Amino acid sequence: MAYRVEKDFLGEKQVPEDAYYGIQTLRAVENFPITGVPVHPELIWALAHVKKAAALANKQTKMLRANIADAIVQAADEVAGGKLADQFLVDSIQGGAGTSINMNMNEVLANRALEIMGHKKGEYFHCSPNNHVNMSQSTNDVIPTAIRIAAYRMAQTLLETLDGLQSALYRKSEQFDDVIKMGRTHLQDAVPIRLGQEFSAYAAVIGRDIGRISRAADGLLVVNMGATAVGTGLNAKPEYIREVVRIMAEDVGIPLQDAENLVDATQNTDAYTELSASLKVCAVNLSKICNDIRLMASGPRTGLSEIALPPRQPGSSIMPGKVNPVMAEVVNQTAFQVIGNDHTICLASEAGQFELNVMGPVLAFNLLQSLKILRNAVDVFIRHALDGMEANRERCEEYVRGSFGIVTALNPHLGYEVAAQLVKDALKSGTTVQALILERHLLTPEEIAVILDPVQMTTPGIAGEWLLTGESEV
Amino acid sequence: MAYRVEKDFLGEKQVPEDAYYGIQTLRAVENFPITGVPVHPELIWALAHVKKAAALANKQTKMLRANIADAIVQAADEVAGGKLADQFLVDSIQGGAGTSINMNMNEVLANRALEIMGHKKGEYFHCSPNNHVNMSQSTNDVIPTAIRIAAYRMAQTLLETLDGLQSALYRKSEQFDDVIKMGRTHLQDAVPIRLGQEFSAYAAVIGRDIGRISRAADGLLVVNMGATAVGTGLNAKPEYIREVVRIMAEDVGIPLQDAENLVDATQNTDAYTELSASLKVCAVNLSKICNDIRLMASGPRTGLSEIALPPRQPGSSIMPGKVNPVMAEVVNQTAFQVIGNDHTICLASEAGQFELNVMGPVLAFNLLQSLKILRNAVDVFIRHALDGMEANRERCEEYVRGSFGIVTALNPHLGYEVAAQLVKDALKSGTTVQALILERHLLTPEEIAVILDPVQMTTPGIAGEWLLTGESEV
Amino acid sequence: MAYRVEKDFLGEKQVPEDAYYGIQTLRAVENFPITGVPVHPELIWALAHVKKAAALANKQTKMLRANIADAIVQAADEVAGGKLADQFLVDSIQGGAGTSINMNMNEVLANRALEIMGHKKGEYFHCSPNNHVNMSQSTNDVIPTAIRIAAYRMAQTLLETLDGLQSALYRKSEQFDDVIKMGRTHLQDAVPIRLGQEFSAYAAVIGRDIGRISRAADGLLVVNMGATAVGTGLNAKPEYIREVVRIMAEDVGIPLQDAENLVDATQNTDAYTELSASLKVCAVNLSKICNDIRLMASGPRTGLSEIALPPRQPGSSIMPGKVNPVMAEVVNQTAFQVIGNDHTICLASEAGQFELNVMGPVLAFNLLQSLKILRNAVDVFIRHALDGMEANRERCEEYVRGSFGIVTALNPHLGYEVAAQLVKDALKSGTTVQALILERHLLTPEEIAVILDPVQMTTPGIAGEWLLTGESEV
Amino acid sequence: MAYRVEKDFLGEKQVPEDAYYGIQTLRAVENFPITGVPVHPELIWALAHVKKAAALANKQTKMLRANIADAIVQAADEVAGGKLADQFLVDSIQGGAGTSINMNMNEVLANRALEIMGHKKGEYFHCSPNNHVNMSQSTNDVIPTAIRIAAYRMAQTLLETLDGLQSALYRKSEQFDDVIKMGRTHLQDAVPIRLGQEFSAYAAVIGRDIGRISRAADGLLVVNMGATAVGTGLNAKPEYIREVVRIMAEDVGIPLQDAENLVDATQNTDAYTELSASLKVCAVNLSKICNDIRLMASGPRTGLSEIALPPRQPGSSIMPGKVNPVMAEVVNQTAFQVIGNDHTICLASEAGQFELNVMGPVLAFNLLQSLKILRNAVDVFIRHALDGMEANRERCEEYVRGSFGIVTALNPHLGYEVAAQLVKDALKSGTTVQALILERHLLTPEEIAVILDPVQMTTPGIAGEWLLTGESEV
Repeated sequence: MAYRVEKDFLGEKQVPEDAYYGIQTLRAVENFPITGVPVHPELIWALAHVKKAAALANKQTKMLRANIADAIVQAADEVAGGKLADQFLVDSIQGGAGTSINMNMNEVLANRALEIMGHKKGEYFHCSPNNHVNMSQSTNDVIPTAIRIAAYRMAQTLLETLDGLQSALYRKSEQFDDVIKMGRTHLQDAVPIRLGQEFSAYAAVIGRDIGRISRAADGLLVVNMGATAVGTGLNAKPEYIREVVRIMAEDVGIPLQDAENLVDATQNTDAYTELSASLKVCAVNLSKICNDIRLMASGPRTGLSEIALPPRQPGSSIMPGKVNPVMAEVVNQTAFQVIGNDHTICLASEAGQFELNVMGPVLAFNLLQSLKILRNAVDVFIRHALDGMEANRERCEEYVRGSFGIVTALNPHLGYEVAAQLVKDALKSGTTVQALILERHLLTPEEIAVILDPVQMTTPGIAGEWLLTGESEV
Repeated sequence: MAYRVEKDFLGEKQVPEDAYYGIQTLRAVENFPITGVPVHPELIWALAHVKKAAALANKQTKMLRANIADAIVQAADEVAGGKLADQFLVDSIQGGAGTSINMNMNEVLANRALEIMGHKKGEYFHCSPNNHVNMSQSTNDVIPTAIRIAAYRMAQTLLETLDGLQSALYRKSEQFDDVIKMGRTHLQDAVPIRLGQEFSAYAAVIGRDIGRISRAADGLLVVNMGATAVGTGLNAKPEYIREVVRIMAEDVGIPLQDAENLVDATQNTDAYTELSASLKVCAVNLSKICNDIRLMASGPRTGLSEIALPPRQPGSSIMPGKVNPVMAEVVNQTAFQVIGNDHTICLASEAGQFELNVMGPVLAFNLLQSLKILRNAVDVFIRHALDGMEANRERCEEYVRGSFGIVTALNPHLGYEVAAQLVKDALKSGTTVQALILERHLLTPEEIAVILDPVQMTTPGIAGEWLLTGESEV
Repeated sequence: MAYRVEKDFLGEKQVPEDAYYGIQTLRAVENFPITGVPVHPELIWALAHVKKAAALANKQTKMLRANIADAIVQAADEVAGGKLADQFLVDSIQGGAGTSINMNMNEVLANRALEIMGHKKGEYFHCSPNNHVNMSQSTNDVIPTAIRIAAYRMAQTLLETLDGLQSALYRKSEQFDDVIKMGRTHLQDAVPIRLGQEFSAYAAVIGRDIGRISRAADGLLVVNMGATAVGTGLNAKPEYIREVVRIMAEDVGIPLQDAENLVDATQNTDAYTELSASLKVCAVNLSKICNDIRLMASGPRTGLSEIALPPRQPGSSIMPGKVNPVMAEVVNQTAFQVIGNDHTICLASEAGQFELNVMGPVLAFNLLQSLKILRNAVDVFIRHALDGMEANRERCEEYVRGSFGIVTALNPHLGYEVAAQLVKDALKSGTTVQALILERHLLTPEEIAVILDPVQMTTPGIAGEWLLTGESEV
Repeated sequence: MAYRVEKDFLGEKQVPEDAYYGIQTLRAVENFPITGVPVHPELIWALAHVKKAAALANKQTKMLRANIADAIVQAADEVAGGKLADQFLVDSIQGGAGTSINMNMNEVLANRALEIMGHKKGEYFHCSPNNHVNMSQSTNDVIPTAIRIAAYRMAQTLLETLDGLQSALYRKSEQFDDVIKMGRTHLQDAVPIRLGQEFSAYAAVIGRDIGRISRAADGLLVVNMGATAVGTGLNAKPEYIREVVRIMAEDVGIPLQDAENLVDATQNTDAYTELSASLKVCAVNLSKICNDIRLMASGPRTGLSEIALPPRQPGSSIMPGKVNPVMAEVVNQTAFQVIGNDHTICLASEAGQFELNVMGPVLAFNLLQSLKILRNAVDVFIRHALDGMEANRERCEEYVRGSFGIVTALNPHLGYEVAAQLVKDALKSGTTVQALILERHLLTPEEIAVILDPVQMTTPGIAGEWLLTGESEV
């Protein structure tokens, strides 16, 4: 293979002649063969746009000659468009706070710009990774900025999907609004509830999750471009700082704004921990919902069987006819991953020191993965589990008829102790509470019918209240 | 000892004659000897106020006779005032979603109310724990409501303390605004920064933490009184629901509001996970700040010694004269506890099933502990570490003079590669970069003085920019 | 109140005249009002024994005069016996790696020893906290040693309780060995299993937990007495080091041994993280078991109702007759706490720096709490839930009869696809698989009886294998 | 594109004609587009070997015709050899406990076996994924078995690398054995220590990690082949169970053994949580070591500069000449990932229900990733950071000369209080402790030389002990 020789202040390396990456990319490849997972494409996209904006701002502030700037811009557009994707070799988990992926990008853009300008790759005098592509920048501002852009965009996609989830849950809430079933607390028979009410509760908590994630994502809009190495803005002209964020915001279509305190914005990673925490809270809620759904769908014969999920695939390689709630299970697993990722993110965030958190790569790796998989899992869950879910009305009603939980409605009329005794005796004798009440002349059949009406129990109020007050029924 | 006999539907028990608690408290004591830590006093306070409000609302809606209601209210006021504190025996970690602490409160209030009304303890016909004190209520609404009130109040106290922290950090930021020092990234010499800038970054992130915790705490204001067992409001009159929250809000001085969806508010615990997550994010930030401070205070002779903390106690039982950064260390440890507690809270929240999360006790235990210890640790940190902290100006400046990081300012003038070579050669020969520049005739002494002025490096811009453009210096 | 004045190199403080603690305890109380929870009594006990052993070893190596050593030993015995418990004021979470609790102990023992020798409290010339009680020691060896002793002893108590749990589970396994029930995977009907087999699986995993915790606890037996400040043994005579561990081991009845590498043993905290990790693994297993038990006990009418737990307390303040699986729930909550504590422990362990991990107090706080509550929760779970648990045989068998899972046994005879079709058609038509087989002339009634015998399905082998091979049935 | 039509009991699907996978793989691809990361190659390898062993055992027990068995074996060998790798399409995170990857394998092997036997793909009558390839098996035994084999093999590779790490640390320990430096506790000057002692402590803890991981990995050797669906062995002949494990153990060269209790081995996942916990403990230790190394390497001018790491890559895109400790940083990040993964693993393990833990895929995903990245990170850390690390002797000694920590050696001679006063006065006046001692006639120059010899301070004992006892120096 043909090579060109590149050098940096640590020495020389042979770079494949047709490679757009350069010596520092090669060093990083050698240093960090960790996960085998390359940097997330959304981060590459965002970084390309950051470089483009920087080139334009440097051109505008006369720091960069127009022809070089234009070549860099063209190269960045190409990369953002998906070209040269195979030139980004560095691993997701890398030492150095992202210097390696920044330099990989700088090298690829420089070499592509060189080509565009009619030079050969490696002729960095005409367009250098450090002096031209990275002009007015540092890893410490471009990488956090690119992470924020990528995370913000992925958060918006997730939010759309969660909106879809909430809508789907509300649809189910309406569809199941007249399905009366037993409410359960402690997995023990409680009092009647409507299946639709349960789904409205799921929809409500997802609604709050949307709010939380949305607010947290907004925290990503503040970027630290112009901070350069430590937030002091050394080597970045104030007019460049103003321009680069304005250009970038317009280019990527996101209302980015420059940080008031660049030192703060460079060293602190709370925008990531906050977003991840909101994802974690959502994951906890999703897992709870899926646990409920798997319980309600348990059966078909030896479980609760209150709902039926659309069959998606044979559930067993050995048990014929078995179908499992695989779409709910995959949400559970995704939730566990997101919760674990949040842990990693917190550890990495706590490890920041002084002017920089050098654990940026692992932060980005986990944050972007969480955003991606949560979105993907929810998306298939809606389409393959929720939309086709059906209630087993008969089973639900049968449970209500058979349960003792309804005696709670007797409290205002007979007192807690008498009602408790009725349950105990009914359980023992195998008879119904209603029969015992009649037998003991505690209430008339008409009173029983009103007080123990399960549907009425699903809304606030005291059934048969007029019996207590002597007023006539309204 | 003299006893009275109490019974419930599971049987009888002897209760010490002078005890205000009753049979169910005794059962819980027997069942849950887990941590040895009783329920948090703030939760007792809040629960007493919940019971008071319920009694008043039941009186108003004519469900409860006035004399009984008044006696319960008086009893609740006494308990909230700290009386009968030794009657609350149940453990912080208890099975049953808080039924035991609810019944403990119901029993204590019933017996005290009986006394007030001139009856003997245990004569529950006149005022029963379940029928009168717990009227229109369920553990599943009163306990979540009490946890929210307690957590909200403790969150406000924490927020005041964090306000104090932010102010103290800003004061330091001003005090240290002219202390020039070396910025560090990767623990390696970077470029100059002012110590005040670092403290402004700490203040800024704490400011965001205040916002996060404050927003999360507001989520606690929505309570589910009237939900009763599963959120359907069975046995709770609509007018009671309206009144109880209004009365309670006025009584405790917090803008509580009733949940729109009571089923949601009864089964979901995201208000806790959200608040805990915000505490965790804050804990991560505090730990990072304290790590920085411990590094800067390291020494006195073999560390960085950039700042000096007020000596608070001899630091060693064996090493004479040693003083340690104990106030920062205790914040680190507290932060670790808060982060671990958040983990417990997430696990417990994920374990909710159907209409209720039965893990409420461990949720409350951890959430209230986190709120308490974070406040306490920050409070002593401000008073005993931050306020008396001093900068070691000489040492800070000495570092700036001795470091090579300043060569970054040469980039626009000489290019990254030439600057890198200067560092390499200076390190090797032991001379200064300035000397090498002169020796190699790269810049004049005047140019060096302007370009390598460390103070200018701490604000945005390119030192000696006019040299690049040929314009005269502004 | 009367005071004596004590001084250290940071200044003076008034100490209550009758206090056994001294100036450094007072400083710590002022510095660390964090949790309000004092240091665990087991740690006080262990530290007293460490001090006793050190005094004896110093006496033996002629470093400490006999009369002083004897007085310290007597004082330490008193403290270990529970006396002066109110003199240990410092908080569980304290800065300073345990210096405060070490000095609290040094001061209490010094003052008590002074009394014993006929001096007044505070006359430290005759017996000083640092020079005499702390002789040859540092916080950095005595505190880790005391934590290890306390944790080891509590681990043994936990192990005894876990042994009891395993035995109880095996008893249940035998008791339920003939209870045939449906096995479930994915909460969906699978194939028959015996309830006893399930409990044998629980017993087996607890058996492995016992092994794990036991092995991890053994790691605590290596102590770093004699390490003094940083593990180099400065100021500790080699003969002292040999003696102090020997004396201590004999005194506390634990086979302690001195670390080969004292620097290692002083800076590393992996003995704690390893033990905590083993507790966490156990907590995960316990939580899973309790989840299963709560599911099996769900009902009584709208759940699985396969087992019945002894009723321990009324389960609701509003729902009469309700009984909840509170003993299982408290184990779940305890498990969550232990898992969260493990997180805190890992964070604290990771924060060690150079020669010492200064986060010892929060490590000890969490480790000892985990050991305590896990033991307590398991203990009550055995006594109040497991021992009285009963199987609902009829219900279990009914499930087996009604389920389609048994068709798996048809695979070798009819193939997976035919069996799957039978399930599908039976579900649709509401008939049984058996009827369909006969209707379609797939097998004879005799063959069905053999192949679909649920009891045989609970042991390895192919039912009706001779049908496949043409051999006659054995 | 040409298709063949495949069907299962849920319906039909078009499968690309040349595909080796079948309908169930396609369903899984549609259901689980979550991470985009395919199942780990080591797991594919292991699963192929499991299938091979099952085919051989089924052949031996006459359940499977020899020609079919042989074709399956050949197909499995090909897959294990890396062929058909592009046919494994299912996602790492998938619902269904691994049924999808099991069926993907079953389908690929069936179709390849059909080809080998001269049939066309899809002619499952001759060799069916379920009836022949999956014979005597269930997802619930083959997937856990394959995960264990993959994890065990990867654990062995990790252990070799950790052995290499320990050796490298011991080499450094020897190399640096005579480098005297200041020990630090609380980041404050403590007493002298040798750099080699520090590295011996690192080596020692890694040694214990090796033991922990090794013991935990051994837990993976117990597999549940023959358990089939729920551990009861339904459809698996006892002789098959014996044979399959024996064959497999021989084939993969690992001392696998069959579980005594197959129900236990099928439902419990403690082998994973235990291994992951041991990886986590190791990660915590590695992170601590790397933190120390990054601190010691901090500088070059404004940090501790006690050691120098081999420069691996330019450390900054903006700061010329900067070199960062990237190899240590990547270990820190990897450690955080492993710790977070452990969290996910615990959550997934806790979610097991009844006879099976359906969260197997996410368990495997995280466990195998942890094993892989920990190994990779340690490997490059040894080669690129540890091996070339050098001590900065002069700097280390300079620190010792300048520090006051050495006064600890004065305790036995002058007492803690006098020594503390010396430090205080020396710090104030800027003089040395030695000068003050002479000035105050506390010791002679000769006594000072002996007592304050830093090298002697790094081993146990009391310097100048004879001065205390009046005996002559030995």
